[in-house]
Amino acid sequence: MIKAAIIGGSGYTGSELARILSRHPEIGLVAMTSRQNAGTPVAKVLPSLNGFTDLVFEAQLSDDADVDLAFLATPHGASMGIAPDLLSRGIKVIDLSGDYRLRDPALYEKWYGHPHKDLEGLSRAVYGMSELLRDDIARADLVANPGCYPTCSVLSLAPLMATGWVENKVIIDAKSGTSGSGAEPTKSTHHPACGSSITPYKVVGHRHTPEIKMALDAVSGTGNGVVFTPHLLPIVRGMLTTSYVTLKKDKSKNELQAVYDSYYAGRRFVRQVAIPSIPSTVGSNFAEVGIELADAGTVVVMGALDNLVKGAAGQAVQNANIMFKMDETVGLDFPGLGV
Amino acid sequence: MIKAAIIGGSGYTGSELARILSRHPEIGLVAMTSRQNAGTPVAKVLPSLNGFTDLVFEAQLSDDADVDLAFLATPHGASMGIAPDLLSRGIKVIDLSGDYRLRDPALYEKWYGHPHKDLEGLSRAVYGMSELLRDDIARADLVANPGCYPTCSVLSLAPLMATGWVENKVIIDAKSGTSGSGAEPTKSTHHPACGSSITPYKVVGHRHTPEIKMALDAVSGTGNGVVFTPHLLPIVRGMLTTSYVTLKKDKSKNELQAVYDSYYAGRRFVRQVAIPSIPSTVGSNFAEVGIELADAGTVVVMGALDNLVKGAAGQAVQNANIMFKMDETVGLDFPGLGV
Amino acid sequence: MIKAAIIGGSGYTGSELARILSRHPEIGLVAMTSRQNAGTPVAKVLPSLNGFTDLVFEAQLSDDADVDLAFLATPHGASMGIAPDLLSRGIKVIDLSGDYRLRDPALYEKWYGHPHKDLEGLSRAVYGMSELLRDDIARADLVANPGCYPTCSVLSLAPLMATGWVENKVIIDAKSGTSGSGAEPTKSTHHPACGSSITPYKVVGHRHTPEIKMALDAVSGTGNGVVFTPHLLPIVRGMLTTSYVTLKKDKSKNELQAVYDSYYAGRRFVRQVAIPSIPSTVGSNFAEVGIELADAGTVVVMGALDNLVKGAAGQAVQNANIMFKMDETVGLDFPGLGV
Amino acid sequence: MIKAAIIGGSGYTGSELARILSRHPEIGLVAMTSRQNAGTPVAKVLPSLNGFTDLVFEAQLSDDADVDLAFLATPHGASMGIAPDLLSRGIKVIDLSGDYRLRDPALYEKWYGHPHKDLEGLSRAVYGMSELLRDDIARADLVANPGCYPTCSVLSLAPLMATGWVENKVIIDAKSGTSGSGAEPTKSTHHPACGSSITPYKVVGHRHTPEIKMALDAVSGTGNGVVFTPHLLPIVRGMLTTSYVTLKKDKSKNELQAVYDSYYAGRRFVRQVAIPSIPSTVGSNFAEVGIELADAGTVVVMGALDNLVKGAAGQAVQNANIMFKMDETVGLDFPGLGV
Repeated sequence: MIKAAIIGGSGYTGSELARILSRHPEIGLVAMTSRQNAGTPVAKVLPSLNGFTDLVFEAQLSDDADVDLAFLATPHGASMGIAPDLLSRGIKVIDLSGDYRLRDPALYEKWYGHPHKDLEGLSRAVYGMSELLRDDIARADLVANPGCYPTCSVLSLAPLMATGWVENKVIIDAKSGTSGSGAEPTKSTHHPACGSSITPYKVVGHRHTPEIKMALDAVSGTGNGVVFTPHLLPIVRGMLTTSYVTLKKDKSKNELQAVYDSYYAGRRFVRQVAIPSIPSTVGSNFAEVGIELADAGTVVVMGALDNLVKGAAGQAVQNANIMFKMDETVGLDFPGLGV
Repeated sequence: MIKAAIIGGSGYTGSELARILSRHPEIGLVAMTSRQNAGTPVAKVLPSLNGFTDLVFEAQLSDDADVDLAFLATPHGASMGIAPDLLSRGIKVIDLSGDYRLRDPALYEKWYGHPHKDLEGLSRAVYGMSELLRDDIARADLVANPGCYPTCSVLSLAPLMATGWVENKVIIDAKSGTSGSGAEPTKSTHHPACGSSITPYKVVGHRHTPEIKMALDAVSGTGNGVVFTPHLLPIVRGMLTTSYVTLKKDKSKNELQAVYDSYYAGRRFVRQVAIPSIPSTVGSNFAEVGIELADAGTVVVMGALDNLVKGAAGQAVQNANIMFKMDETVGLDFPGLGV
Repeated sequence: MIKAAIIGGSGYTGSELARILSRHPEIGLVAMTSRQNAGTPVAKVLPSLNGFTDLVFEAQLSDDADVDLAFLATPHGASMGIAPDLLSRGIKVIDLSGDYRLRDPALYEKWYGHPHKDLEGLSRAVYGMSELLRDDIARADLVANPGCYPTCSVLSLAPLMATGWVENKVIIDAKSGTSGSGAEPTKSTHHPACGSSITPYKVVGHRHTPEIKMALDAVSGTGNGVVFTPHLLPIVRGMLTTSYVTLKKDKSKNELQAVYDSYYAGRRFVRQVAIPSIPSTVGSNFAEVGIELADAGTVVVMGALDNLVKGAAGQAVQNANIMFKMDETVGLDFPGLGV
Repeated sequence: MIKAAIIGGSGYTGSELARILSRHPEIGLVAMTSRQNAGTPVAKVLPSLNGFTDLVFEAQLSDDADVDLAFLATPHGASMGIAPDLLSRGIKVIDLSGDYRLRDPALYEKWYGHPHKDLEGLSRAVYGMSELLRDDIARADLVANPGCYPTCSVLSLAPLMATGWVENKVIIDAKSGTSGSGAEPTKSTHHPACGSSITPYKVVGHRHTPEIKMALDAVSGTGNGVVFTPHLLPIVRGMLTTSYVTLKKDKSKNELQAVYDSYYAGRRFVRQVAIPSIPSTVGSNFAEVGIELADAGTVVVMGALDNLVKGAAGQAVQNANIMFKMDETVGLDFPGLGV
């Protein structure tokens, strides 16, 4: 049994990790930390886990904690202060914040507003897009778990970007449920403000933009222009990305579909469909991908997933499975709610 | 033209007042105050009013403001510090906070947590339930505008309570859209917390309980036990109350319906229906009321309205119309959205 | 491995059964029937089950099907035409329709509009409220799985009704997500009609009323007046009931809470909380129950659950576990989504 | 007073027309037809209009009806069977269906699946995009009222398309509330299917595509590739379009904004904002437009409006105002709900 800790466990990502790990047959959750809730039983803060864990939140992981793996569900900027010590103690780290995603420290500083403090870690971190980088993840001891928007858009675009058939400009129109913005109330997630609307936000300025570009550039082997427009949806869980790329020369829909089928052959968690459905993925680690061929040589690429599972905690567990040489589906092989 | 000011105009109630008054043919809005937004154009803070007002928020109403009427959209506890001065200047006051609703200062202190500071005002204030107390309102210079829950439940129960046919115990199961909790983000109105749920809150402890009891006791001429359970709904605007009272002896549904028809004869804003519909009332000053006769001599009494209009700003304007001897429907005679 | 079939598998209840059984370690799903979808792979009709089942819908269960257990997810009126034959073949039956719930054939005919066709089956059927009738269920070969509203209200009221401390009149104000009305589009579940509203429906006329009364009467050992008002909520999954009963003499909240703690001691799926939360239960077989003591000797009793799981398919699987002498939690022991 | 009739008045568009006309000072509603509801009072079918109209639905407009103007809220295919006779009687016609929008009969047949039956009418019909074609509308007796998606996307794109600064390819990612699909329940608007999701539909196959192209081509004076992806949103009212065009050469955001300010100078119903807000427009005839300059020379163009008002009935009334030489804002000059 692998012994895991969740650092920063009282937010949505941390609690989702605990929910998933509570049923994982090979990874045991042995500690959860939360400064704010230190000393309080986890099940009191996260009532749906009542009966699933007896853990009590600790202020921080003790120096002699017997832990093989730490999930960092800490805020951007905090993870890079925690990871080096954990790694030095031989603990593998999966960071769910943005701290280790952007390989270029200058890019990190530009988008996150402060310099990177762990350049050594940054240089060895592996980007944890499970379906794209499994072999690298298997060798890593520090994994930067991707953001929800990058997971949804890159998974749905990667097969096409890898062909070289499309121009190097990608438009991503993304829509996310409100749980993606975390557990802290804000003006934009105040129900009267968002509950009967769809609102574009951080247009041309969202931090996931350079992350998406980095991942797509790696897949296509070229630089891409990335236009990324996130919208806040009046649903709690789930995300849809609708992306637009232009073919350099004519391809049939069958040719395109064949590319997708081949790219994800044997990968359990990416499902090809005509129109991706959020409810089919909710509560699960599945992503749904669909394509359509439009006028003017444009391919419409659609992706859907549960932002808290495949977009965060589920993919983190999938990465843990890979890092510890298990089947990637262990503890994650359950269907979405469907309705 | 009556000259009106809105004190505390940047919240939902204040902005709804401004929205309604922007089309009122007899009341002109001449000032809006907001400490937080002083110096900023109203239309910048409330974008939907762009093109409808050139007012700039003032920190407070100037001493020489030429105003006939002030709407206080200030927090509980603040209104009673403002009203006396306005009244002394000959300005009529409609207070939308809870400060002047409970006639008994001890009750006020118990439920609002601080002593009342304006006992003289409290003793002369008239409770502004327009359909029940029109003549008193017409003579008042200080009106305590009712809460949204009391308006919905008392309007729907009053005809029956006035008959003396029912036992002196009322159960009110109330459901409100999130705009009723105001413009400030809180944990309970955070979309991920409330967007896919219905949540009972302040069970047996909501401040509207004594207000409802006071109003029902006045109607029935007796003391009543009031059990009031509010629930937060995942909609923005609108409220439904489902109330339960027990007949002392058998009455037919026709007899009950006749009571309602007679009670509200000639009153524009209360509509008798089989099943009240929130969408039929949204955006309007209408309330819908319906009754059903159940087993065990129980009458199920349903009411629906727009919490920001008939439950707050609309009824305040209706009261202003009455105070200034206009037809009560002036500036309010438009239908709900329906869909 | 127990071999199970789902009869009528293309609606919400049938697909939820398939979702749950897909992960059940002891019950294998060997057949699903659907007249409408006969010949079509299940995963094509229910895309979220893609990768979880290779079954193809059959028009009906073949005469020589090797099956130990059949779940009837058929409409009211159809189940009683199917169950006798299955039972005669030695197949245990769990019926999720209303056909075997009301013990009195006259009551059935009154509320369902046609005479009962299987009086023998009706006389031997056991009402499958798992927490209340476990021993009877363990001996049954025909279980009438309770409705969603009865499960939520009876589970939350039973401990109190069993004390004899309360008067024999119960008011139940119930709120359900739209999935409770099934997969067929109707005027009331059309999104523009219900998506920004809460609507009372079938006030004093819902079929679950006599079922609730039957279950509560059995618990209290007396006849009860039951007033039941269902409301349609603008959420997909989840249900809340807020019930009101009157104490015959004073009891403290602690005394009441002790009754609940004792009643459900050792039962995994009923959780005592201050305020029940729908999201804590969504996707799971848990019900949450909370009580509050109000004025006039009234107890406010709240219950929440996922109408498709504990309110339908989950409780059916729990009953199957009990019928086949397994721990009742097998295959059901996962937490709700929480958010 | 202009005398108007609504043909096909029981759907969402017809009832919205009646709602707006009920407060119009210069246009009186004298007849509403509905085959299905003939003989029934309008206010019984549309309860929110109770007290606002005494009309009774007629099966069809009588031959001697004294009417100046008919709004056709009839289905696609039906309007062209009705309009010629009305026009021959000297009645001006505003058709809210798609029958007279596409100038090219072959295009109509391709997208609507049947040949056009009124080529004469089609040749004289004026496309009623009020802000773009006011002078033509003023001279018309047959106006083809635009679809909701075309109104939102074309209003937001027109100023930019008119400059000649952008390439001839437009990507429109559109999101609509469910009321846009009409009053008839369907599988896609069934609440359990759409209430917690956002669903792309008719990708590359929506009938509004050629209408948008026709309107944009007219504005730009060139042919444009149009990629249009509609999505169904879990809200009732409101629409957002996010469009993407590419600049041929660099322009600053200020230059672009100046184009918009100038284009809509003096036009009441198009409002320039940073981020368009659906709630600001709900219930009103306002559209909000905002632009942002992204990487790779892409302009992100956002538009929001109420699909039933500016996207249908409101614009129809605006067109009526123009046709009858009134100020275009008469009867429409009220703000959106804001919250």
